[in-house]
Amino acid sequence: MIENKTKTIESYLDNAATTRCSSRVQALVQKTMDEDFGNPSSMHHKGFQAEHQVRQAAQTIAKTLKVSEKDLIFTSGGTESNNLALIGAAMANHRLGSRLVTTQVEHASVLRTMEFLQEQGFEVIYLPVDKEGIVDLDALREAVDANTVLVSVMHVNNEVGAIQPVAQAAGIVHEKNPQALFHVDAVQSYGKLVIRPKKLGIDLLSASGHKIHAPKGIGFLYKHEKAKIHPILFGGGQQAGMRSGTYNVPGIAGIGEAAAEAYENLEEKVRHMYGLKKRLIEQAACIEGVTVNGRSGDDSAPHIVNLSFPGVRSEVLLHALEESRIYVSAGSACSSSHQGASHTLQAMRLAPPLLESALRFSFCADTTLEEVDAAALKLQELVPRLRRYTRR
Amino acid sequence: MIENKTKTIESYLDNAATTRCSSRVQALVQKTMDEDFGNPSSMHHKGFQAEHQVRQAAQTIAKTLKVSEKDLIFTSGGTESNNLALIGAAMANHRLGSRLVTTQVEHASVLRTMEFLQEQGFEVIYLPVDKEGIVDLDALREAVDANTVLVSVMHVNNEVGAIQPVAQAAGIVHEKNPQALFHVDAVQSYGKLVIRPKKLGIDLLSASGHKIHAPKGIGFLYKHEKAKIHPILFGGGQQAGMRSGTYNVPGIAGIGEAAAEAYENLEEKVRHMYGLKKRLIEQAACIEGVTVNGRSGDDSAPHIVNLSFPGVRSEVLLHALEESRIYVSAGSACSSSHQGASHTLQAMRLAPPLLESALRFSFCADTTLEEVDAAALKLQELVPRLRRYTRR
Repeated sequence: MIENKTKTIESYLDNAATTRCSSRVQALVQKTMDEDFGNPSSMHHKGFQAEHQVRQAAQTIAKTLKVSEKDLIFTSGGTESNNLALIGAAMANHRLGSRLVTTQVEHASVLRTMEFLQEQGFEVIYLPVDKEGIVDLDALREAVDANTVLVSVMHVNNEVGAIQPVAQAAGIVHEKNPQALFHVDAVQSYGKLVIRPKKLGIDLLSASGHKIHAPKGIGFLYKHEKAKIHPILFGGGQQAGMRSGTYNVPGIAGIGEAAAEAYENLEEKVRHMYGLKKRLIEQAACIEGVTVNGRSGDDSAPHIVNLSFPGVRSEVLLHALEESRIYVSAGSACSSSHQGASHTLQAMRLAPPLLESALRFSFCADTTLEEVDAAALKLQELVPRLRRYTRR
Repeated sequence: MIENKTKTIESYLDNAATTRCSSRVQALVQKTMDEDFGNPSSMHHKGFQAEHQVRQAAQTIAKTLKVSEKDLIFTSGGTESNNLALIGAAMANHRLGSRLVTTQVEHASVLRTMEFLQEQGFEVIYLPVDKEGIVDLDALREAVDANTVLVSVMHVNNEVGAIQPVAQAAGIVHEKNPQALFHVDAVQSYGKLVIRPKKLGIDLLSASGHKIHAPKGIGFLYKHEKAKIHPILFGGGQQAGMRSGTYNVPGIAGIGEAAAEAYENLEEKVRHMYGLKKRLIEQAACIEGVTVNGRSGDDSAPHIVNLSFPGVRSEVLLHALEESRIYVSAGSACSSSHQGASHTLQAMRLAPPLLESALRFSFCADTTLEEVDAAALKLQELVPRLRRYTRR
């Protein structure tokens, strides 16, 4: 048990939902709103200033992925990146086939887009996962056929932090069908893991700014130079016609700065977050019946811990923690429907008592041990007490 | 002639391309990046803080239009708003017909989206305009038939500032086909003109933040409660399923603040801009052969002046002005293809010497008479000089 000296701390443990903008990001966003406010498409100096910000951000991000900045498309966020990858690839390549393959544990922006494409005549295969949330590669091998256009597998699951074997998946996809495109939703891994799309065999990769201390409303899609996709927004022909609309200069500059920051001293930050993860799991283990959903070691994402507290409903515990200024998530916060058990945990076949009592704790590099300890202490106090109030 | 005392002034006369963020907007955006940084979809206090910012912005904007905030959909900008209106309406109502009607002088985000819909099997009618850029209402009456799904007419033309008779157009559309939806691209009018969609008969209305001193990357679509459209981005089901993706809280708060600011003392601001417009036209008239493209009085937009300087190419004059820190536009800056004569001016049937020498000057409420005078003075000096260098 930890000593009770942490009462006044605010513990923001919902960094997988969104993060605070870093000071460096805030300063640069401010500059682009005030000084470099031009439209990059303008032909004069004010336009060039703004264009310079865009180019710099693209170069920074390209470096973190070891790709060409020409292969980056800025979007309004992870959802648009996933929509562009899936709809764009499906529409551009439908002559090659009509099968799409993904997993049962993707983010809603992949699952709902797949449903849309299903309505457009595509066939969608949803791959199962094991008890730890890892995709079944044998099922993938079976699913990818000559008629397959696109395979989409997320890198890090947003709910349980499972790291999918994307390199192996890419190998299987390209071996089974060299024409099929391989998309990775890296919204939860970009900035936390080193990602080399070319080495890994990734054709399309989605990322989001606000998960890495950049503002909301910005993201990007990496597209391999040979991957063919259609745009989904039409207009002025910006970004080589792949994504029309005035460049979101503040957002783009912000995600560039955030990307640079995220990959500075990455190892140290990741080690720190694994430390927090280990600590939370250790402390939570003092509570009877607690289970970790998904893996808990460094074969899982450093910033996500999913725990079940059987006998206490997620929402009840979430709001009880909130009273002590401890902020966590029940299921994915990326969905505005606050109802229903997590589809990821369901796919992992959790028993109902675990399904109904799951909470996600998520960190960033700035999260302190004190914040985690405050949460653990409060859990140790709350869970037994709330269980007494619950009819079993 | 104006006295030459304005040499060191910077004249940013490209406000129709984009605007500087206002101080109030900057402060609020900053707050949402730093303090109210939560995800509105989160169930805890940090989420509620962010949700509050979104709700406040929606209420503010709704008031400026006298509509319900429930009928506003936040998007990544004018381009997405136009795409959502057009594709969304066409897809949701294609059982009612397959004809779409628009004008020859729309923004690229309408024209290119119409071309996409044409590829999807819709028939698109492009209405002509007169010499002043005003749409032909007789042609509209003829075009709208029982098979028409959607009519899209911009409010203020971005290149010449022509104000389209949207109320009359709405009347014609609804009279000829009560099921057809009427969309207005109000990107250049929102914040400059009083707009009452319900009174005017507008079913869908697009606006953009960065034209009214909000950040880039944010816009909205007003949708009449009875208008049926399909979403074009799929995911977490935010905004009643009409536009998935994490709420862009900084952008939304920013456009809310900018909307409030724009409609404060609107009359005074508009009067000021008409004063600038009149002044620039008067001063430019001292230059031989100058023509105003479009109307010049208060039957045109207050912030846009389009002038031709026959004998001098637009780009040459633009860059010569740039050397004196006077920033204007040749054609629309919303397009990243810097080439080709303006489609709006072509539709207005300008003679080639006028087409090739057109420049757009655009103001905001903060533009000063000194900035305009500096530009006029420089034009009086440059145009005759540059003409001497030009082979006629």
